[in-house]
Amino acid sequence: MATPLFPSERLDRARRAAAALGLEALLISPGADLRYLTGYDAQPLERLTCLVLPVDAEPCLLVPALEKPAALASPAGQLGIEIIGWAEGDDPYALAAARLPRTVTRVGLDNRMWFEKALALRGALPDAEQSLAGAALYGLRMRKTNEEAAALRRAGEAIDRVHSRVGEWLRAGRTEREVGRDIADAIIAEGHVRVDFVIVGSGPNSASPHHELSDRVIHPGDPVVVDIGGTTDQGYCSDSTRVYVIGQPPEEFLNLYEVLLQAQTAQTAAVRPGITAAELDAVGRNLITEAGYGDYFIHRTGHGIGLESHEEPYITADSDLPLEPGMAFSIEPGIYLPDRYGARIEDIVVCTEDGGERLNRTNRDLVILP
Amino acid sequence: MATPLFPSERLDRARRAAAALGLEALLISPGADLRYLTGYDAQPLERLTCLVLPVDAEPCLLVPALEKPAALASPAGQLGIEIIGWAEGDDPYALAAARLPRTVTRVGLDNRMWFEKALALRGALPDAEQSLAGAALYGLRMRKTNEEAAALRRAGEAIDRVHSRVGEWLRAGRTEREVGRDIADAIIAEGHVRVDFVIVGSGPNSASPHHELSDRVIHPGDPVVVDIGGTTDQGYCSDSTRVYVIGQPPEEFLNLYEVLLQAQTAQTAAVRPGITAAELDAVGRNLITEAGYGDYFIHRTGHGIGLESHEEPYITADSDLPLEPGMAFSIEPGIYLPDRYGARIEDIVVCTEDGGERLNRTNRDLVILP
Repeated sequence: MATPLFPSERLDRARRAAAALGLEALLISPGADLRYLTGYDAQPLERLTCLVLPVDAEPCLLVPALEKPAALASPAGQLGIEIIGWAEGDDPYALAAARLPRTVTRVGLDNRMWFEKALALRGALPDAEQSLAGAALYGLRMRKTNEEAAALRRAGEAIDRVHSRVGEWLRAGRTEREVGRDIADAIIAEGHVRVDFVIVGSGPNSASPHHELSDRVIHPGDPVVVDIGGTTDQGYCSDSTRVYVIGQPPEEFLNLYEVLLQAQTAQTAAVRPGITAAELDAVGRNLITEAGYGDYFIHRTGHGIGLESHEEPYITADSDLPLEPGMAFSIEPGIYLPDRYGARIEDIVVCTEDGGERLNRTNRDLVILP
Repeated sequence: MATPLFPSERLDRARRAAAALGLEALLISPGADLRYLTGYDAQPLERLTCLVLPVDAEPCLLVPALEKPAALASPAGQLGIEIIGWAEGDDPYALAAARLPRTVTRVGLDNRMWFEKALALRGALPDAEQSLAGAALYGLRMRKTNEEAAALRRAGEAIDRVHSRVGEWLRAGRTEREVGRDIADAIIAEGHVRVDFVIVGSGPNSASPHHELSDRVIHPGDPVVVDIGGTTDQGYCSDSTRVYVIGQPPEEFLNLYEVLLQAQTAQTAAVRPGITAAELDAVGRNLITEAGYGDYFIHRTGHGIGLESHEEPYITADSDLPLEPGMAFSIEPGIYLPDRYGARIEDIVVCTEDGGERLNRTNRDLVILP
């Protein structure tokens, strides 16, 4: 098992970012933010687990008593912060409030905290305005360290090994679900601890970007979009899309694919510090539009990736965020002709001083299977 | 694949329950509530997917345009409600607000909605007080129909098949993680589509109730708590715990286990309409306390189960909820001696007119493995 990545300096950096926004504390429930800050990969359950991180007082990690041994055994147990196990019958929201100054007026809750927990915290801290902790944290999380980039590289290599084996399972006569099952097994076998998603969109289903699996039987001539990802033992995610075809595809599909490949290739080559997300989006969108497919590229170019499959930065037509070294994101333009067929090509790219490093290296050509 | 369970009458029942609470609309994002109401098993992602269900106007399902084909292909496509695909660049929160009367003052958000979405909905509906949709929905969800009970029974049989095979993988010299990997594979192979959790707590780790997997090597004499669950294709969950031991366990462990078995057996036998959750909790807690282990039973007796592994009703010492036919929940007392060992025995039970039906039927005795 590889080394986890959870320097305790992250707590200090988060505090400073929160203070700069006028927040007096961050309240962080299970999820990627908690894992980023403490290394604790807690399950999101109904009992409150919460990192209470005041900007100018000692933090603590509140956990249900029955999970205290698990929290202590996690990297959070080595952070030097107090871990408090609350007992059944205790009011954990009152305990969280008691760790903050009585005068607190602005707190940041993690963006994905369950509404019921946010509401209970509002009850316990009625004078504190609640805002998004992501405003403080996402700026940190989206700039990957070299160690984090290495963890993403390792995830990329794992999913590439799966794509390089898709021909073992994908053939006419099988259903998407059968093929998807084999791919899911391989996602684990090739180096992930969790399967995050398996999209096998065949024939007309390839025109549905977020199609998952169906009982449709794959036919000769079908384009098949395979978009797959998982999470490694370090918590970092993979995500890559390739397009396969069984035998001979329709002529227009080959044309569509050629346009898409040019767009995706141009976009991955255009990654460099200083280009904005919108400019990067335009590099692909313009090529696709010029070829007459603009109305069929119905989504953004990509999303950031790290401890979550989808995180900042989002590569959208309306984001003027300039890319910086360490930012990691997908480049995944797609063209979808409704009810006919579609295609998407996706690599994860890390922005470096010199340009973009593609973390997915399997051939981007259409893969013709027998 | 078995028939999904999503009668459209659920929308009407949810509306009536919401109206009875003075709510004018429910706003439901991806998760078990959305699946319960519409059959749509949407992924929880950053783009807004939301069922807008006014109590006295037509509902609609808002989805990102790129997911509209998937939503239409889901059971939600057969419900007769409008499915609206919003395009990249649209403001989906404004679209949701536009479906509600301008005068709306009270809306219910699903309890697990992400805080960032709740906050964005507050921005779009600044005059609407937000409360928990669970107040309206959980009363419906916790009273299972016969079809839902059958789906839980099928999930129970699947996890029982896994427990009956644990002896194939659990032996001294292997790590918890290795055993857990085999169990996870079997959870899928025996009839689930998703692994929800795999706890293999060996030796001292058995004293950590929510321990998951570690690289600890299992030794002769170790008690091993195996608590596992998954989700079937119908969306319903399984959850069962059995305790295994490799060879001869410590003498006191046998005594502890005997007390626990009596408590769990008495509790499953005590399930009947009218008994309260607290009374059912006390049946086991009193026996454990009388035997001197009261301080080591550090959690509630159980949790409801259905489309989620943990849902209402919770079987706690302070809940005066009277059980009713159709309620389904775990009975899982545990005794944990810190740093030494612990045990937990868990069955899912459905309350019927005549008493309790155990959905897990493998032998509850300590399983001695060679």
